[in-house]
Amino acid sequence: MIPIRTAPDVLTRARDCVGPAMRSALDRLTPDLRRMAAYHLGWSDAEGHTMSASGGKGVRQALAILSAEAAWADGSVGVPGAVAIELIHNFSLVHDDVIDEDETRRHRPTVWAVYGIGQAIVAGDALHTLAYQVLFDAERGVEAARCLGDATAAMISGQSADISFETRASVNVDQCMAMCAGKTGALLGCAASIGAVLAGAPDATVGALRDFGMHLGLAFQAVDDLLGIWGDPDRTGKPAGNDLRQCKKTLPVVAALASGADEGIELRELLRGGQLDDAGVDHAVALVEACGARTWTAERAKSHLDTALGALNRVRMNPLAHRELADLAAFVLERES
Amino acid sequence: MIPIRTAPDVLTRARDCVGPAMRSALDRLTPDLRRMAAYHLGWSDAEGHTMSASGGKGVRQALAILSAEAAWADGSVGVPGAVAIELIHNFSLVHDDVIDEDETRRHRPTVWAVYGIGQAIVAGDALHTLAYQVLFDAERGVEAARCLGDATAAMISGQSADISFETRASVNVDQCMAMCAGKTGALLGCAASIGAVLAGAPDATVGALRDFGMHLGLAFQAVDDLLGIWGDPDRTGKPAGNDLRQCKKTLPVVAALASGADEGIELRELLRGGQLDDAGVDHAVALVEACGARTWTAERAKSHLDTALGALNRVRMNPLAHRELADLAAFVLERES
Repeated sequence: MIPIRTAPDVLTRARDCVGPAMRSALDRLTPDLRRMAAYHLGWSDAEGHTMSASGGKGVRQALAILSAEAAWADGSVGVPGAVAIELIHNFSLVHDDVIDEDETRRHRPTVWAVYGIGQAIVAGDALHTLAYQVLFDAERGVEAARCLGDATAAMISGQSADISFETRASVNVDQCMAMCAGKTGALLGCAASIGAVLAGAPDATVGALRDFGMHLGLAFQAVDDLLGIWGDPDRTGKPAGNDLRQCKKTLPVVAALASGADEGIELRELLRGGQLDDAGVDHAVALVEACGARTWTAERAKSHLDTALGALNRVRMNPLAHRELADLAAFVLERES
Repeated sequence: MIPIRTAPDVLTRARDCVGPAMRSALDRLTPDLRRMAAYHLGWSDAEGHTMSASGGKGVRQALAILSAEAAWADGSVGVPGAVAIELIHNFSLVHDDVIDEDETRRHRPTVWAVYGIGQAIVAGDALHTLAYQVLFDAERGVEAARCLGDATAAMISGQSADISFETRASVNVDQCMAMCAGKTGALLGCAASIGAVLAGAPDATVGALRDFGMHLGLAFQAVDDLLGIWGDPDRTGKPAGNDLRQCKKTLPVVAALASGADEGIELRELLRGGQLDDAGVDHAVALVEACGARTWTAERAKSHLDTALGALNRVRMNPLAHRELADLAAFVLERES
């Protein structure tokens, strides 16, 4: 009997499997563009010297590999999809940091902070096009590229909505969820199904895996929004209450404003004043919690995780991969929260 | 006998033919993203009210249509390629305006100047992905998307080199030409061949058309660089000598610096000081001309046009389209200079 791998093992194995393909993909870039990409990915410092990579956990690439295995193919079939997804994800991070004027990510200066805004925009554009180029070389790459195009378009729509929220007087919970579905859900849905697409799996399998990833993404975003307010600064790398300091309309904030509670009305007045000082942030955090929005958001995260796990049961798939997908989902949310 | 259409007729017909497909493509965007795209294209004002479109001349879309006809297909076969090329071209313009901090384009405020930097970056990203999505729906769209990916990657590399030139002490003529080949040549090469790719033309035909477009692009860039210094502000929409004011290392400037003339050495000293005032710009313009770099650049433009026209003679293609491609090349450069 083949033992089920633990989630950390799954993540490590995916990194080992996708890493060389990712490096080959980046070798298609000019040296300047490659240097920025390698810096962003944590492979090198700003001067181009190799570092022991920290990077992200690589959840998306692991989902892509497992989705190929779920469709009874070898994990390697999912590699071009994993690379393409990681490239799109990282292009969006590089652009997001410019858009949000964020100067640090994963405890390091962001690409624009090191290389300038112009080069950061162009570096993001290069990763964006490279994602498609990688898929064009793969068998069934066109079908995968079509899925990636739809997911990327949804992600970009979500980013646009997110930016517009900052200047809008009111955002309701539905609008906020739709934004999250685009910004985070679509690409995770694509990550969790692109390997199956490359493996030529039936539509029902692809659809079930996509729904799994989409709802995992929504759960992930809800947890991320909780961390943006109540997260430990040492672990998030951002000051406590950071999202409230920036008056971001994240899920807990929107839920608090829509709660009808007196504290919600007080919160609206407080946020209307713009950027908050330390005392203002502390007060805003207390108001969000008093509205019950912290509990509500945590329950939403749990409910999306349940929906995600339910989607996996809709079709018959490789039971080993099924189990590892479920474990990975739980692990990622656990680690986040 | 079918009469050969004049170049303005060719441009008008291409606009009529591609316009509806372009509108259908943009309808896939969310209202916010569509509004920015329509504004950028000159279809509407900042509030979204329809305008009598000014937009660009539409050279790229006309090339795409003619390249299908050159391969003995109906011009309509080139339409998805024309739309995709225009989307990529316009994504790069929207991002370029952010990168260069340009506040006006075609006598109107740029997208970022109206909607903010964040939304402009995201709007460009949306057009970028939409270009691929349009091709995925077309017959032989994958082959076309592969060509588009290579051309877009080259364009982005050229943009990255262009940005790095601004802070580099010296740039030689070869480096400058390589940058132009990427930034302008690659996408025009793709425009002039993508219709033939969609028509299933042989590699030799596609290659000849691509070389035609590439060298047309280099001629175009040389003329554009001349206009950036000696152009009529009423026609270019930019102040006289604008590129020198911004100390851009365009072809005439790089050629002047590399000329070995005393005026070239004086120019280097002048540009080293950074941003120039009006008198400084006038003096710099005179120095570039005294080095013979204006004449040299004009000769380069002519020589690239000759190479472009020569490429069309390499293979047998529809003689009507051949003639119209040649006329369009001459017309575009004539109008520019």
